[in-house]
Amino acid sequence: MVKMAVIGFGNIGGGLVELVESNREIIKKDLGTELEIKYIVDIRDFTGHPLEHKIVKDFNIVLNDPEVSVVAEMIGGSHPAFDFSIAALKAGKHVVSSNKEVVANFGEVLLAAAAENNVAYLFEASVGGAIPIIRPMRESLSSDNILSVNGILNGTTNYILTQMLVNNTSFEDALKQAQQLGYAEANPSADVDGIDACRKICILAALAYGTVYPSDLVLTEGIRGVSKRDASDAARLGASIKLIGHCEKTEDGKVLLCVCPRMVPASVPLYSVSDVFNGIMVSGEAVGDLMFYGRGAGRIPTAGAVLADIVEVVKHMSSAQLPPAKWVRGDESTLADVKAAKCAYYCRIEGEKIPDGCVMVSYEDGQTSFSTDVIDGYALDTLLDGYAVTSKIRFFA
Amino acid sequence: MVKMAVIGFGNIGGGLVELVESNREIIKKDLGTELEIKYIVDIRDFTGHPLEHKIVKDFNIVLNDPEVSVVAEMIGGSHPAFDFSIAALKAGKHVVSSNKEVVANFGEVLLAAAAENNVAYLFEASVGGAIPIIRPMRESLSSDNILSVNGILNGTTNYILTQMLVNNTSFEDALKQAQQLGYAEANPSADVDGIDACRKICILAALAYGTVYPSDLVLTEGIRGVSKRDASDAARLGASIKLIGHCEKTEDGKVLLCVCPRMVPASVPLYSVSDVFNGIMVSGEAVGDLMFYGRGAGRIPTAGAVLADIVEVVKHMSSAQLPPAKWVRGDESTLADVKAAKCAYYCRIEGEKIPDGCVMVSYEDGQTSFSTDVIDGYALDTLLDGYAVTSKIRFFA
Repeated sequence: MVKMAVIGFGNIGGGLVELVESNREIIKKDLGTELEIKYIVDIRDFTGHPLEHKIVKDFNIVLNDPEVSVVAEMIGGSHPAFDFSIAALKAGKHVVSSNKEVVANFGEVLLAAAAENNVAYLFEASVGGAIPIIRPMRESLSSDNILSVNGILNGTTNYILTQMLVNNTSFEDALKQAQQLGYAEANPSADVDGIDACRKICILAALAYGTVYPSDLVLTEGIRGVSKRDASDAARLGASIKLIGHCEKTEDGKVLLCVCPRMVPASVPLYSVSDVFNGIMVSGEAVGDLMFYGRGAGRIPTAGAVLADIVEVVKHMSSAQLPPAKWVRGDESTLADVKAAKCAYYCRIEGEKIPDGCVMVSYEDGQTSFSTDVIDGYALDTLLDGYAVTSKIRFFA
Repeated sequence: MVKMAVIGFGNIGGGLVELVESNREIIKKDLGTELEIKYIVDIRDFTGHPLEHKIVKDFNIVLNDPEVSVVAEMIGGSHPAFDFSIAALKAGKHVVSSNKEVVANFGEVLLAAAAENNVAYLFEASVGGAIPIIRPMRESLSSDNILSVNGILNGTTNYILTQMLVNNTSFEDALKQAQQLGYAEANPSADVDGIDACRKICILAALAYGTVYPSDLVLTEGIRGVSKRDASDAARLGASIKLIGHCEKTEDGKVLLCVCPRMVPASVPLYSVSDVFNGIMVSGEAVGDLMFYGRGAGRIPTAGAVLADIVEVVKHMSSAQLPPAKWVRGDESTLADVKAAKCAYYCRIEGEKIPDGCVMVSYEDGQTSFSTDVIDGYALDTLLDGYAVTSKIRFFA
């Protein structure tokens, strides 16, 4: 019998409790032993709840109980999630987490604490929800040379962009729909401004290159600037607009990291990743292009990814033989200049006369849209000098 | 330092040797120790080859060398690949394999021998080439209830079908192209008759349900019967034709297993898996629909998957804590009746008058094509009774 504690009885934490209960038999068969949730930690009151007898408010009860060997941190936000996690690791307990904010902000500290205490810190559910992506990158691709990662990492923005493209809905109306369906929060900034996607691409870059960069050093453009006209032009170009988190190793050994909307042509598999689904393309020198696709969010799918981490931890518990991941914290000195990266651009300007060498996409409402050759951001500035620019979107590179 | 032997110095074996050499530094960093290929076993002569000093003809040299802890079986075919593998496992050596024929025919025997001898038998490269699919199913999805697996598992047939759909090439011409490009063998039967895809879906079904069924019990239809007219009708229907390996657990607890061409609508992510790429959709109760996409074949991509297995084995070597997989051999008694499975059908008949309730797709050359409601194969027989049928293709269900 393995005993665990769930910290945070919200959406994902509740889903995990439910899943451990409903899959009891499969889990037992898979693990060769039973998995029991001994405590659920939450500061809120759950009087009358059927699991009230398991709910405690004080995390120290978990910390001081030697029977608890696995802690599932499902709180969200940086604090106290980080503090509880590091305390649990130092107490010799394995920690699994769905908290991308904590992994992106403190991943290197938590992994080091895990290694020192001979326990595991796993976070499959922090990126791509139900999609197994962290484990394949950590295990299957660890001896390959990762060339780039490109991901549709945020389901809310992908839903909004899909509505804009398919139904030519405006950003504002699509956002309202997403909020009504529970896909977007009342304050949608973390999603639509790209903050959530940025944390996730930082985690994937750390898995690819061993260095975790602070989110605030990463060029992060959200989707508020994407208009109905951009969407209809994308359809004309046989492309879709996706919010893409991108990382790659540049020729001089630096890491290029950015989050921005991109025109994705139909020949790229990410093109058809629609609605709230996520898709992550990993290009390795040996394996070529891989794509991982699935539900990027949701109570039970995300809880399923957390459960997979718990199962891994339990299977390897007797030997504590989980491959140690070591990250270092990166700074500006090893980050590439995003503006110098080359790609083709879609642009729109006021008036009829487009810059030389560009290919017109459409002319409407006194504005002309066109696509450029493959150029860098400095060359684009020169090209557009003197024009009144209303839109600029990178093509998928 | 970990020492290994590569058995079979052909396409994949040669790729593995190359990859271990070219990724020496990444592997060393990842493993914390060096990986050395001590022997390459092949019965052919390689006089003058730069690696001649490592090449031996007698497998017993490997078997009797206690320094060799990992054996990579890259021979292909059932024998002597199975015999060498079981001997190595019994000698306490880990075995990794890219050989789907051996895994499908003897998987349960090899896994049992591995468990008895406290070593691992891993076979990531046997399905989906470079795509990490075996490991995610074995680890990330092991505590979920797998509802179904649907895969485009053979790159050669997918290339041929893509040519037929996109360029309206005939089957014969597309096959010739595939042979010229090296995608298809001179005798293409294993690919175009669905035998290769059948072995792979049997392996995936075993991972999902713990039972490995003999290939000859599985309904296996290849793509020789798919015509240009079928392909152009698919395009009219907004679908593509794909050779799909399918398995699911039916309501009465049996396993439904089949390989056949299917009309795949654009709303299904497998629709856009083109050319030699593979795509595998796994539906789990908790995780929902996942898709894994990548190169299903090729020297270096496949060798990359083998290398990932070797790395896993080496990382867990000291503890031999690899999760033991246990399969049993299945028989007809637990296999569902494929004909009773319900789906919609695309059909074509001689003449103009289509059965009542069907929807016409097109009328040309004295033949009429149409789609049916969701029915089972027995009801289809009744529906088509008295008509001269020229084509029958299941829709993706």
